[in-house]
Amino acid sequence: TANKTLLLLPGDGIGPEVMTQAKRVLNWLQASGRASFTIAEDLVGGASIDANGVPVTDATVAKAKEVDAVLFGSVGGPKWDKVPFEIRPEAGLLRLRAELQVFANLRPAKVFDALADSSSLKPELVRGLDIMIVRECIGGIYFGEPRGIETLPNGEQRGINTEVYTTHEIQRVGRVAFDLARKRQGRVCSVEKANVMEAGLLWRQVMTKLQAEEFPDVQLSHMYADNCAMQLAKNPKQFDVIVTGNLFGDILSDLAAMLTGSLGLLPSATLGAKDEATGRRPGFYEPIHGSAPDIAGKGVANPLAQILSLAMLLRYSFDMQEDAAAIEAAVERVLAKAGRTPDIAVPGRATISTSEMGDALIAEL
Amino acid sequence: TANKTLLLLPGDGIGPEVMTQAKRVLNWLQASGRASFTIAEDLVGGASIDANGVPVTDATVAKAKEVDAVLFGSVGGPKWDKVPFEIRPEAGLLRLRAELQVFANLRPAKVFDALADSSSLKPELVRGLDIMIVRECIGGIYFGEPRGIETLPNGEQRGINTEVYTTHEIQRVGRVAFDLARKRQGRVCSVEKANVMEAGLLWRQVMTKLQAEEFPDVQLSHMYADNCAMQLAKNPKQFDVIVTGNLFGDILSDLAAMLTGSLGLLPSATLGAKDEATGRRPGFYEPIHGSAPDIAGKGVANPLAQILSLAMLLRYSFDMQEDAAAIEAAVERVLAKAGRTPDIAVPGRATISTSEMGDALIAEL
Ligand SMILES: CC(C)[C@H](C(=O)O)[C@@H](O)C(=O)O
Ligand SMILES: CC(C)[C@H](C(=O)O)[C@@H](O)C(=O)O
Repeated sequence: TANKTLLLLPGDGIGPEVMTQAKRVLNWLQASGRASFTIAEDLVGGASIDANGVPVTDATVAKAKEVDAVLFGSVGGPKWDKVPFEIRPEAGLLRLRAELQVFANLRPAKVFDALADSSSLKPELVRGLDIMIVRECIGGIYFGEPRGIETLPNGEQRGINTEVYTTHEIQRVGRVAFDLARKRQGRVCSVEKANVMEAGLLWRQVMTKLQAEEFPDVQLSHMYADNCAMQLAKNPKQFDVIVTGNLFGDILSDLAAMLTGSLGLLPSATLGAKDEATGRRPGFYEPIHGSAPDIAGKGVANPLAQILSLAMLLRYSFDMQEDAAAIEAAVERVLAKAGRTPDIAVPGRATISTSEMGDALIAEL
Repeated sequence: TANKTLLLLPGDGIGPEVMTQAKRVLNWLQASGRASFTIAEDLVGGASIDANGVPVTDATVAKAKEVDAVLFGSVGGPKWDKVPFEIRPEAGLLRLRAELQVFANLRPAKVFDALADSSSLKPELVRGLDIMIVRECIGGIYFGEPRGIETLPNGEQRGINTEVYTTHEIQRVGRVAFDLARKRQGRVCSVEKANVMEAGLLWRQVMTKLQAEEFPDVQLSHMYADNCAMQLAKNPKQFDVIVTGNLFGDILSDLAAMLTGSLGLLPSATLGAKDEATGRRPGFYEPIHGSAPDIAGKGVANPLAQILSLAMLLRYSFDMQEDAAAIEAAVERVLAKAGRTPDIAVPGRATISTSEMGDALIAEL
């Protein structure tokens, strides 16, 4: 196996704690001769603000573009609540996504069998749930111009952001969703507010045309974002693949993740286009959960989402299907029998720490 | 009691069916001498497109501005899916909101005791739930300019919408939320994406200043919209009043409504500013649910949300507190003992029609 390059960006809050456990899995992969990695590590978010005055440096961005894949933790926390908008911790994450051109954020909302009872939904509504949300990740209102806060002649202020999507941006993320659906149940639900927003209307039209022209074998439906939130809460199993824009995707994928009861276990992959010349495809991997400042530093965070993000990285960026599957299977076994971190604790099972969860996982591997 | 003027706009789908039952309550109020109304009725949405070519006529808008309050049903349906964006059914609703300048959409998410088990959430998470979501309703991305779909030089298309909020727009809806909180548990949670959008950053700053200057007795917290969706799904009882913009409010209030399990029972009120000269305040009342084309015409829709919207109208626009409370109490009693429409049907209770639910309510009154 050729040498693969990897950049780790643990970030803030629980990021470094859960990343430490992912590193143990990387070490295990190397020690057992399954792969050989060149691993770099760097600062991002608040940690980078503290050290460098910006949430990500040009050098870190350059490194992220060079490596085969990036494994990211999480950013942000109350310490940086007052830093200027332009250099807030989240700006580091957003810049990385944009510079890497990773436009398709794959967010599985999957219920682990052992955790069906942890959901706030009735267990019969979530048992076996397995949705894939594909969120456009480098466009829409997150990046649209004009944007900013301006002062009006009368002294009032005006905050502005722009939602903007082009045919091309919609098509490329649509293709990712339709491709994924082909390997799943063959159903895509495209979500927007076409009844209110022209950007949503174009989104609907482009998806409709794309399906007809390139994916006639995949079933396409459309849903308004407000209704989608309701349907997720009512009966999430009705969905296979959901494809949507950056802002709706942010909200709906977090909602879906929470509904699984398995938030601390959910990974995500954000992918770019394959470079036809080099065959390379940028890949950025991060847990769905955030930096969780309330529990940071206590050693109680659940490291499984970070470890499963690494599994996604192995699968999508390194084509190491077997090792990815081995890690995922080990997670299932750990959930079935080992202790639990506080987020998924249940009566009758020991409550364990972040590193003990790492121990259990490594032992399983 | 002085004569009150009222405009009924039943609209499409189940709108006319549920409005018929609300009219019976209006008749009962008049027949029992509690009030005297002058009631007009008009077309809106698809029904108005069919008759007049537009989803609301200038004459109807003028009438809506003249009356003391508007009771609205719902608009839209597959029949009008292909009409041009400018005259789609929803445009009638949006124009009415904008022309009436009803900026504060009050959406209670309340669990009726008799319905705690109908929620998809575990009953202990929702029993007794009573949140008030205050959604800004005539600004933000729903109305911001520039907007539209343009063709680029390379033949691609580009869809654009603009999120825009001014200090004044944020303050006036904020005041409504803080005022409501004073009569409730005294807590407001303001929701935006200040970590990504400058419009959200301004929103947060204005709310913070408003609380400090005018509502020091009310507790203010801030939450990102994605986290709010998660927190609603995880533990909705943590909230008292939520205040947010038009788009987030659309999604989060629908989510909250669905989580109650009482969607077919939830009303809303949308209020404007009080005219200091005349003392009048525009009021627009509608159920949270939509036109439900799938069950329209079958006589099975639940009329209680429409009837409770009328109760809100009596309370906020006509200051008829006792009659509003009488209707609300009658709804509780009906739920406790009468049959149920299919949306809230339970084993062991007769399933009844829209008009039978109206009968039961009138009998209770
Ligand atoms: C941290 C924040 C900028 C980010 C987003 O809104 O995209 C996060 O919520 C996410 O979903 O990855
Ligand atoms: C019908 C539609 C335009 C409307 C909205 O998005 O505001 C509806 O969803 C609502 O919430 O009242």
